[in-house]
Amino acid sequence: VEQAVRTMNHFADSLRKAQMAKNSIAILGVDPQLTTSGSPDLPRGYTLKRYCCETVEACAEFVAAIKIQLAFFEAQGLNGMHALSDVLKVARRYKLITIADGKRGDIDTVSAAYAEAYLGDGDFGCDAVTLNIYMGGDVVKPFFRKIKAGKGLFVCVRTSNASSVEFQDIRDDRGILHWQKVAHSVKEWGTDYVGKCGLSSVGAVVGATHPDDAEEARDLMPNTMFLVPGYGAQGAGPKEAIAAIRDDGSGIAVNASRSIMYAYRSARELRPPAAAAAAAKKMRDDLNQAIEVRLGASFQTTKKHHRAA
Amino acid sequence: VEQAVRTMNHFADSLRKAQMAKNSIAILGVDPQLTTSGSPDLPRGYTLKRYCCETVEACAEFVAAIKIQLAFFEAQGLNGMHALSDVLKVARRYKLITIADGKRGDIDTVSAAYAEAYLGDGDFGCDAVTLNIYMGGDVVKPFFRKIKAGKGLFVCVRTSNASSVEFQDIRDDRGILHWQKVAHSVKEWGTDYVGKCGLSSVGAVVGATHPDDAEEARDLMPNTMFLVPGYGAQGAGPKEAIAAIRDDGSGIAVNASRSIMYAYRSARELRPPAAAAAAAKKMRDDLNQAIEVRLGASFQTTKKHHRAA
Repeated sequence: VEQAVRTMNHFADSLRKAQMAKNSIAILGVDPQLTTSGSPDLPRGYTLKRYCCETVEACAEFVAAIKIQLAFFEAQGLNGMHALSDVLKVARRYKLITIADGKRGDIDTVSAAYAEAYLGDGDFGCDAVTLNIYMGGDVVKPFFRKIKAGKGLFVCVRTSNASSVEFQDIRDDRGILHWQKVAHSVKEWGTDYVGKCGLSSVGAVVGATHPDDAEEARDLMPNTMFLVPGYGAQGAGPKEAIAAIRDDGSGIAVNASRSIMYAYRSARELRPPAAAAAAAKKMRDDLNQAIEVRLGASFQTTKKHHRAA
Repeated sequence: VEQAVRTMNHFADSLRKAQMAKNSIAILGVDPQLTTSGSPDLPRGYTLKRYCCETVEACAEFVAAIKIQLAFFEAQGLNGMHALSDVLKVARRYKLITIADGKRGDIDTVSAAYAEAYLGDGDFGCDAVTLNIYMGGDVVKPFFRKIKAGKGLFVCVRTSNASSVEFQDIRDDRGILHWQKVAHSVKEWGTDYVGKCGLSSVGAVVGATHPDDAEEARDLMPNTMFLVPGYGAQGAGPKEAIAAIRDDGSGIAVNASRSIMYAYRSARELRPPAAAAAAAKKMRDDLNQAIEVRLGASFQTTKKHHRAA
């Protein structure tokens, strides 16, 4: 199956196929938070590597993909980078789509190095990476070669955090908001990379905490896969998270990190990975219920198609 | 001396002091480029670690700081991250200021992890880090605690690449360019962190390839240390690189990467680290000459002050 997914050679198609196979648009965010003292914040008795790997294994049934927050591994130095490499090995074994969340972006030669780092065959190789395009198209172009080889991007368009409005909401002299201009560029960059599922491998990060903007983002980027952060700990619920869903139930992948990784804190009767799995299952089900409420009959068709496949 | 610099507890003061001590505003960019095939592009007989460490040692006399392009180490996986850790050990031994160039930036908890990763005491701990603030002030605030402990930031304002104009030059409904708004925020964020040298530890990345913009950036951010990329391989010369210098000769630190690291390709009579050292020395001298032409007598005062110190 892994080989089959990989030889599809189209990221958005692979992600959509994984979503259908799991009946889940949920993504497990692998975010081993730091405590304020700088030491890893992990359940008692677990190392960084062990907790992340066991959480990925436990949640694999309920999510289509994992999103690794690179910062939390970089913060642990070499030990963290070794753990990152080990987590990715587990994810590949479970045939999970892997997204390196690093918000990277730099001039051409440097972006090419990031493409090699996170979409190559090395220790940190994933299926997709998140980008920040303050520096313009130079950031994105070195990734196109990897996209042709089946990899994907998610460009930050409308982020989930409170201060996202500071620069993303600046209105230009024609009345267009900054994030809308970025959305336009993302659509353009992705035009050549639309797959059989109707979605491009040049995706966008569109936070769940701004559902009205997410709907508008969908109008601006009809064929773009949205990576939706902000679910759970950041405050958005299932209804907000699916605001940008397409009529066929495709087009979004919703991430939750803390509310899954740290579910054990409010479910002390379960072992920590089992608590994460229960939270991931609930997230999947809550999202599916919200999709059925929103899409009704048209989504049933999608599910039927999935069951027949 | 290292201890003395570190207990100054102010990044901009430390960097300015190092510039005076070395009589150099040059920065060595440690950018071990990739070849198109994805293998490291190094002189014959050198490993990644050995070439980077020996280049830092050879150039230490001529530069105040090194800037590590993280992407090129991440691209080499675990081997690259071990090399990064080793390069930083050499840099600390030579009392060089270290700048992690990663253009990082994310929501609060994630930015706090980046602060720990690159301004903490771990394997990748440096003296300053470069940031990308598309996500707004949330990106910067988690770094303030590190600034108070003597660390620094360089926020991308006006980058050196061709496509920087795509988003950075968007004009808002009041006629202000996007990068100018970012400059305003950088000035505000830095107000509480101005040191004895008159410069804030919240610095800015302002490329040498736009000298007119650099002068304007100086007007907008009079007390901001500028990290100036774009010298050498990216096309800017010494005159362009010092466009934003302050009257006392302070305020800028100019980076060159490829033109130093790969000087051996056009100086085949020298061993590669020696070729890098010769290029770094020439860069220092060329910058100093440009400063003397630009500032004349006022810079002599600075130099005299330095010699007396």
